[in-house]
Amino acid sequence: MAKNFNQNITLRSVDFAKWYTNVIKEADLCDYGDDNGSTKGTIVFRPYGYAIWEAIQKILDQQFKNHSVENVMFPLLITEKTFALEKDHIKGFAPECAIVTQVGNKKLTEPFIIRPTSEVLFCKHFQRIVKSYKNLPILYNQWCNVIRWEKTTRPFLRNSEFLWQEGHTVHATSQKALAFTERMIKLYAEFVEQFLAIKVILGKKTVHERFAGALETYTIETMMQDGQALQAGTSHYFGSKFAEIFNIKFTNELNQQEYIHQTSFGASTRLIGALIMAHSDDLGLVLPASIAPVKIIILNLFPKDEKVTNLVNKLHKVFIKQYHVQVDDSEKSASYKKSAATIKGIPLIIEVGQNEVIKSTIKVTLRHNLKENFLKINSEKQILKAVSDLLTTSNTDLLQNSANNFAKNLQEVTDFKKYQNLVKTHKGYFIAPFCGDYQCEAEIKALTSTTSRCVPLTPYKKNGICFKCHKPNSPWTYFARAY
Amino acid sequence: MAKNFNQNITLRSVDFAKWYTNVIKEADLCDYGDDNGSTKGTIVFRPYGYAIWEAIQKILDQQFKNHSVENVMFPLLITEKTFALEKDHIKGFAPECAIVTQVGNKKLTEPFIIRPTSEVLFCKHFQRIVKSYKNLPILYNQWCNVIRWEKTTRPFLRNSEFLWQEGHTVHATSQKALAFTERMIKLYAEFVEQFLAIKVILGKKTVHERFAGALETYTIETMMQDGQALQAGTSHYFGSKFAEIFNIKFTNELNQQEYIHQTSFGASTRLIGALIMAHSDDLGLVLPASIAPVKIIILNLFPKDEKVTNLVNKLHKVFIKQYHVQVDDSEKSASYKKSAATIKGIPLIIEVGQNEVIKSTIKVTLRHNLKENFLKINSEKQILKAVSDLLTTSNTDLLQNSANNFAKNLQEVTDFKKYQNLVKTHKGYFIAPFCGDYQCEAEIKALTSTTSRCVPLTPYKKNGICFKCHKPNSPWTYFARAY
Repeated sequence: MAKNFNQNITLRSVDFAKWYTNVIKEADLCDYGDDNGSTKGTIVFRPYGYAIWEAIQKILDQQFKNHSVENVMFPLLITEKTFALEKDHIKGFAPECAIVTQVGNKKLTEPFIIRPTSEVLFCKHFQRIVKSYKNLPILYNQWCNVIRWEKTTRPFLRNSEFLWQEGHTVHATSQKALAFTERMIKLYAEFVEQFLAIKVILGKKTVHERFAGALETYTIETMMQDGQALQAGTSHYFGSKFAEIFNIKFTNELNQQEYIHQTSFGASTRLIGALIMAHSDDLGLVLPASIAPVKIIILNLFPKDEKVTNLVNKLHKVFIKQYHVQVDDSEKSASYKKSAATIKGIPLIIEVGQNEVIKSTIKVTLRHNLKENFLKINSEKQILKAVSDLLTTSNTDLLQNSANNFAKNLQEVTDFKKYQNLVKTHKGYFIAPFCGDYQCEAEIKALTSTTSRCVPLTPYKKNGICFKCHKPNSPWTYFARAY
Repeated sequence: MAKNFNQNITLRSVDFAKWYTNVIKEADLCDYGDDNGSTKGTIVFRPYGYAIWEAIQKILDQQFKNHSVENVMFPLLITEKTFALEKDHIKGFAPECAIVTQVGNKKLTEPFIIRPTSEVLFCKHFQRIVKSYKNLPILYNQWCNVIRWEKTTRPFLRNSEFLWQEGHTVHATSQKALAFTERMIKLYAEFVEQFLAIKVILGKKTVHERFAGALETYTIETMMQDGQALQAGTSHYFGSKFAEIFNIKFTNELNQQEYIHQTSFGASTRLIGALIMAHSDDLGLVLPASIAPVKIIILNLFPKDEKVTNLVNKLHKVFIKQYHVQVDDSEKSASYKKSAATIKGIPLIIEVGQNEVIKSTIKVTLRHNLKENFLKINSEKQILKAVSDLLTTSNTDLLQNSANNFAKNLQEVTDFKKYQNLVKTHKGYFIAPFCGDYQCEAEIKALTSTTSRCVPLTPYKKNGICFKCHKPNSPWTYFARAY
C-alpha cells in the first residue's frame, strides 16, 4: 500500500467527525443525510452495514441462549396511559417519544407511543404469566427497532430510530436479579473485547447517568480513537420498583405472595459506530476478523490469464470451506481493486497475478496494519493454518491497540480547577475521586460538558476526596466527553 | 393416546374459530386478547411462537441468499408526502395507516406514517443508488414489523402489527423483473410445501385482488382444515410504475437513460396461523418436523429410578447431536407429561419407563397421527436412522393430508345461480371460468362473500364461459371464503 490516504476520505487528524461519515459512505455501510422519505436522522442500512449487524446478532443471540434467555416479540405501540405508570421512566423518555394520534383520517381516542424501550409492556405480560417460584426466573429478549427522537443525529451513534436487543427478566430474589444484571454486563464486556476487539471498562453508572427508572445501571464504556467515550451496552436492575406498580407477584416456597425482582439489558447498532471509530484509519474501514462479514478477498490481477484465474479458483475453493471469501475478477486496475477492498475493511487481501503463479507464492495483506505477508502455496492444510493465524492476528492486534489507546489517553485528576483546564486540551478519559451526588455531577457537566462514565467494578485506587465537592470516601470514577 | 380431546380445547367440529384460539393459548404460542398495554389486536409472541417464526426465517433467509438477495433495513416512518406519491398505493393503504403527528408534546409540521409496506422508501433509495446496467439487478430484502390497522383481528392471521419480510428488487428489463417475480413465488411455494407441509396453489391474482400499485400479483393459496382459503405469500410486478414517479433511471448498454423495472415480495407471521389451521387437531398443535422448534421430547416416566434416568440421558446424548431435543424429567404424572408434549405439537414423543429399560425398547409416538412405534435400542446409528425416518414421515403424511383435503373440498362450477346456493353449504374452494373483470368480481363478492383466490399458473382446464357474466374465453379461477 503506497498511499496512506484516500481522496474521498478526510484525514482523522483534520476532522474526525467528517472522517467518520466519509468512511461510512465510502464503505457503503448506510445511506443517510438527504431526504430519504423518512424522519431526519434515520438511516438506511445498506447490505454491508446490515451484514455487520447480522454478525453481531448471531454471536450475541447464541450467547444469550447459552444463558437460557429466550427470544420473544412484543408490540411496537404502547398506550400513553401504560407508559406513564412508572414516573421516573416516563420522565426520562417523554420528550423523545413519537406519538400516534391518528389512523387513516380518524383521530384516536387514546394515543400510542412508539416504543423507546419496552419495560412497561413486558411488565404487563409478566403480570399475567408469573405464577410460582417454580417458574422463575423468566429470561426474555427481543431484537427490534425503537424510536427516540434525537435533536442531533449521527449515523449508527445517535439516530431517531435504531435497532437493538432488549432483554427483560424477572427473578425470585433481589440477589438473583442483581447477579443476573452483572452476568449480562459481563457477557457484553467479553463480547465487545473478544469479537469487536475493543477494550472496555466495566462499571456502575452514577445516579445522574442511570437509566430512567432503574435502581442500578451497569455499563461497558469504550474509548474511540479521538479519545471520546462511547457507551457500548448497559444492564439495569429495577428491584421491585416496576413490580409494585404493575402488581407482578409470585407465590414463594412458603405459599406467600411476593413481588418479583426485575432486570433489563440492551445493546444496539451503536456497536457498529464503535467498531468504525475504534479501528478504522485514513484509508477506510478496519474490521476485526471475528466480526467482518467477508473475511478474505482474492484479487485476480489478470482475469484474462488462464493460469492466474485457475490459481484464484483453487484458492477460493480452499478458503470457502471455512470462511466467507470474495473474489474480485473485474476488469478494473489492480490498484482500484486493492483500494476498494481496503475501504471495505476486509481483514485479508490476497493478490494473485502472474508473478504469484510463477513463484507459487501469494501476497497477503493484513488490512488492519497494511503489512504484507508472502505465503508459499503448499498443502491446503498449511495455507489454511497460515490464514487462520493471520486472521487471529487482526483481532489480537486491534484489541491491543484499543487497550494502548485507552492507557495512553487516561488522565488522573484530584483537583477540579486543574480538571477544568485539562478538559480543554486532553482528548481522552479522566479518572477522579467523585462523591456520586446528583447535584455535584450536574455542576461538573454544566461547567465542563463531560459526564461520568462509570465507577469501575474493579476499583482504580482506594477511595479519595471528591475532586469537586471534597466529600471524603469518594470512589474513583471515569469522566469523559461522550458520544 | 387414549383420549382424543383436551378439556381446554374446543373440538374443531364444534367451533373451528374457538378451537384455533384455544390451541394457540394452550401451546403458549402468543398472548393476546386482554389489555396488553398496546393496541387492540396486537399479540405478544411467546418463546414457543417466536421460535416457530425464527425457524421459518432461518430457512427462507438462506433461500433468499441462495438467489443473491441481500438483507438491508429501512426506517419505520415514512413522510405522508412520500407515501402519497403513487396514487393506487396510497388509496389501498391510507385507511389502515397509523400516523405519528407529535413528538413529546410538540406537534410535528409534517406527519409520518408507520410503514404498512416499504415500496416508497426503497424507491427513494433506488433513485440514489441505481446508476448503470452493470449494477443491475439490485435484490434486497428486509425482515421487519409493519402496521396495518385492522378492524377485526385474529392472532397470527390478522393483526394490527405483524412481522414479515419484504423483498424489493430492480431490474434492467420487464422480462427480467417478471421472471424474478415468478422465481420468488415459486420459492415460496416450494418452501410452504416442503417445510410447512401445506399444499399450495400457485397463481395470479385478478385485478380486483391485486396489491395496491402492482401491475401483476402472484400468490400462493392454501386451504385450511375448515375449507377456507389462506393466502400464504405474494410476489408483485410493478413494471416502471413507481420508477416513473420516483425517477429511477439507469444507463443502459447504449449509454441511454432508461426507467428500471421493479418487483416486491412478502411473507409474514400469517404462516404460523396457516401451520396451526392446516395441521393441528383436537389435542393441540401439530407441527411438521421440518419446522418444529423442538423435534423430539423424551419423557422420563420414573425420574427417581436411576436406570431409567441413565437411559434417558443416553438417548438425549444421541439425539442432541442432530436434533433439538427436550427432556421432561419433572415429577408430574406420565399422562400429564404426554398431554403437555402433545399440546405443543412436538413431532416425536419418546417415553422411557422401567419397562423400556427391561425390554431395551422405547415407545415413540408420532404426534401427527398418534401412532405408536417401538424401537429396539441397538446401535446409535440405527436409532438415529429410525428416528430420522419417523420425522420424515411426519412431513410427507402432513403434506399428503393437506393435498387430500384440498382435492376433497374442491367444487367445480359453471353456473352462478348454482354457485350462490353451493356457497351456503360447501366448505372449500370452487373453481369456475371467470372473466376477471373488476366489476364482475365486485358483484360476486357482494352477493356471496367469496373472493377469487387466483388463476392457477397451470390452467385447470381450457378456458370457458364466465360463470357470472358469460363472457367467453374466461380462465378457470379459484374462489373461496378467505382468512
